[in-house]
Amino acid sequence: MSQPMGYSTTLNHTHDPAATSWVASAQAPGADFPIQNLPWGVFRPTGSDEAFRGGVAIGDQVLDLSALARSGLLSGLAQQSALAASEPTLNTFMGMGPAAWQALRHAVFDLLVSTASSAVQQQVQPCLQAQGAVTLGLPARIGDYTDFYTSIYHATNIGKLFRPDNPLLPNYTWVPIGYHGRASSVQVSGHGFKRPSGQVMPPGATEPVFSACKRLDWELELGVFVGTGNALGDPIALGNAEDHVFGLCLLNDWSARDIQGWEYQPLGPFLSKNFATTVSPWVVSLEALAPYRTAMQRPDGKTNDLAYLHSEHNAQQGALDVQLTMGLTSAAMRAAGTAVHNVCQTSYRHAYWTLAQMVAHHTVNGCNLQPGDLLGTGTLSGPTLDQAGALIELTEGGKVPLTLPGGEQRTFLQDGDEVTMRGWCEKPGAARIGFGECKALVLPAT
Amino acid sequence: MSQPMGYSTTLNHTHDPAATSWVASAQAPGADFPIQNLPWGVFRPTGSDEAFRGGVAIGDQVLDLSALARSGLLSGLAQQSALAASEPTLNTFMGMGPAAWQALRHAVFDLLVSTASSAVQQQVQPCLQAQGAVTLGLPARIGDYTDFYTSIYHATNIGKLFRPDNPLLPNYTWVPIGYHGRASSVQVSGHGFKRPSGQVMPPGATEPVFSACKRLDWELELGVFVGTGNALGDPIALGNAEDHVFGLCLLNDWSARDIQGWEYQPLGPFLSKNFATTVSPWVVSLEALAPYRTAMQRPDGKTNDLAYLHSEHNAQQGALDVQLTMGLTSAAMRAAGTAVHNVCQTSYRHAYWTLAQMVAHHTVNGCNLQPGDLLGTGTLSGPTLDQAGALIELTEGGKVPLTLPGGEQRTFLQDGDEVTMRGWCEKPGAARIGFGECKALVLPAT
Repeated sequence: MSQPMGYSTTLNHTHDPAATSWVASAQAPGADFPIQNLPWGVFRPTGSDEAFRGGVAIGDQVLDLSALARSGLLSGLAQQSALAASEPTLNTFMGMGPAAWQALRHAVFDLLVSTASSAVQQQVQPCLQAQGAVTLGLPARIGDYTDFYTSIYHATNIGKLFRPDNPLLPNYTWVPIGYHGRASSVQVSGHGFKRPSGQVMPPGATEPVFSACKRLDWELELGVFVGTGNALGDPIALGNAEDHVFGLCLLNDWSARDIQGWEYQPLGPFLSKNFATTVSPWVVSLEALAPYRTAMQRPDGKTNDLAYLHSEHNAQQGALDVQLTMGLTSAAMRAAGTAVHNVCQTSYRHAYWTLAQMVAHHTVNGCNLQPGDLLGTGTLSGPTLDQAGALIELTEGGKVPLTLPGGEQRTFLQDGDEVTMRGWCEKPGAARIGFGECKALVLPAT
Repeated sequence: MSQPMGYSTTLNHTHDPAATSWVASAQAPGADFPIQNLPWGVFRPTGSDEAFRGGVAIGDQVLDLSALARSGLLSGLAQQSALAASEPTLNTFMGMGPAAWQALRHAVFDLLVSTASSAVQQQVQPCLQAQGAVTLGLPARIGDYTDFYTSIYHATNIGKLFRPDNPLLPNYTWVPIGYHGRASSVQVSGHGFKRPSGQVMPPGATEPVFSACKRLDWELELGVFVGTGNALGDPIALGNAEDHVFGLCLLNDWSARDIQGWEYQPLGPFLSKNFATTVSPWVVSLEALAPYRTAMQRPDGKTNDLAYLHSEHNAQQGALDVQLTMGLTSAAMRAAGTAVHNVCQTSYRHAYWTLAQMVAHHTVNGCNLQPGDLLGTGTLSGPTLDQAGALIELTEGGKVPLTLPGGEQRTFLQDGDEVTMRGWCEKPGAARIGFGECKALVLPAT
């Protein structure tokens, strides 16, 4: 496979902050999808029974990759990639590798940039559809979903609640802790889910009871879609790990804390997590994120990771400064027209373990990743309490309620709450790269 | 969906122990695949690049369901089922439900039974292929794989080693503990796997080291293939749970104990398990197992399960007396022509939680199962040490080695060891129902 080494960290003309698109909405202030972004997704016209197919977000439009593949505007690897991305999920395209992803992204850039000829613009125009008129789907058929635990702040905050005597376990600073989650219940933004029921052990009780969850929580994470996989038995080295990453999305790992507390020993979370996971529909490429690379920022300054997890490149450029917020509206707030109330803001740069370390660790034993597999970063809490990525942290275990605009209080989620996560990168001298939103409504228990 | 309620427990003419097949090998003494069994699998001629398709084992032959579907011998639901089972995996057929599974199984019985007309026998004969001339595949595209922990003997034995002060956690007798495993690394019997490497914490050390696994173990389990699934948010009630079970296979959940000991807290096993799982190729239907139903046999006599996990029917008939052995040959033993040395024999009847309880618990929070999903029972250790389903139990944590024929000793597995699991049901007045074998070779680490 001819992979452009370092494609995810090298700046090129697609990163030029001065570049603009002839799709005017791409230049709107605060737009998530300028021409420097070009995230991947799948869509179909709302209300139609057409097949889902790949698309690229530009401003408030979607570029239909199946229409583009039929247009005659592409050739070579870009055309092959657009054909693969015309399928109902992006798995085939994901499996083609970074050279293919880059070829199509650059070709799309050249077609959408302001300097494209008017003849080209006229040919591309029919391939655009308004985002408001399409339904976005799950970008991949997810084979396996793995959730990591890469924020030392989250691990410490939640460890204090579950194990006051032993908040951060001795393996944390050596092992990028992860566990397998449920692929079947991953849904794309916009789908609600029923509050789960299950066994809980009430405080002071000697026997568990069956109950609707009373401590329903969110977890603010990033999702990582695997591109090319590896054969069973063949680990992916740290230095090649990012070449296997197709891109990132927002991820909300819904959690039933009361069910979790009773079930999680000794084999980890199960029913407390597998009732629903919500991801955003747009997958942002590592190439688009290249301007936002930064050094790892471990609070303990640890540098002696085991060799398979260590490289100077990873230490200096392995982290990504993706800013993240989580907020909600209650039913009453929506009725009153009140905007989403953000209750935390943090950044992925605080993660203890990087993207590349997650991939290298996951495969070091020979475990095989496949195109379309999903990795979660784990809850991305930052150093201070207002950067905490879960209600259980923000409310100190449900003891200190949050007050919403209008006066309602929340420790955990109530039926009718709609939770909205957003993510973006922004800094002087680089274009803003947005992730869009990841939203879901809490429905009553069965 | 028209489901034959109780199809999995009601005896009918396919259970008649006196029935024989015109395929003579089905009546060989100790044969795993008499006409009362008729397990499902997928196969193709060895060395060919033909597509895998569904088959039924009869004696030493495979009945090709795609050939049967073309033969004109079937009609109605049986014909629709055979067409679905002609695909490269059985997922579509699995999703059709118990009426379809039963229709095809009964039709196949009627075609293979000795009393079938010679005209029928002549038409069926070309649909048979010798098992020795075919390659068996993974029966399903596995969406999600969940491993349970249903043996209280195993939970206690292993709990003593990992947590001497607290072997059986308080939730064990209330919660059918389970966790998500890795679907991508499930392989069918006959495929070897490389010894995994990873982080381990040597005894007395203060920092972990990277090493090839030194404590490689097996776990003797049954696998459960899900048939019809459930929609997200809609639990499967205990009374309907078995209608969602397509059938059972043998399952070996390979485990790297040294990696497990260091990584498993707080989120459960990950790299210590996800490098390989081996399943047998033949899936035995619940209908075939109906004569081997028995009452639950809990050592503590507990009867007050929470309502969603309790029914008198389940208590009286929810367990299955499937006998299981695990054994091995070393490279030296195979060179000397020594047979498989069995080191444990147990039965699934000792499980604390039944099949139906696993399904009801898994979905009680609304988690959705899909056709082809795989559930593992967890290691099926019985009440005594020689019934223990893992080496870590049999060798008391690696302290008491086993002696193999020829004098070699084993605490954990060595490179070149080949591990063979077998399962069968047998009792007076009923036909023997075999599972075949589940076998894999340990290859050296990379």
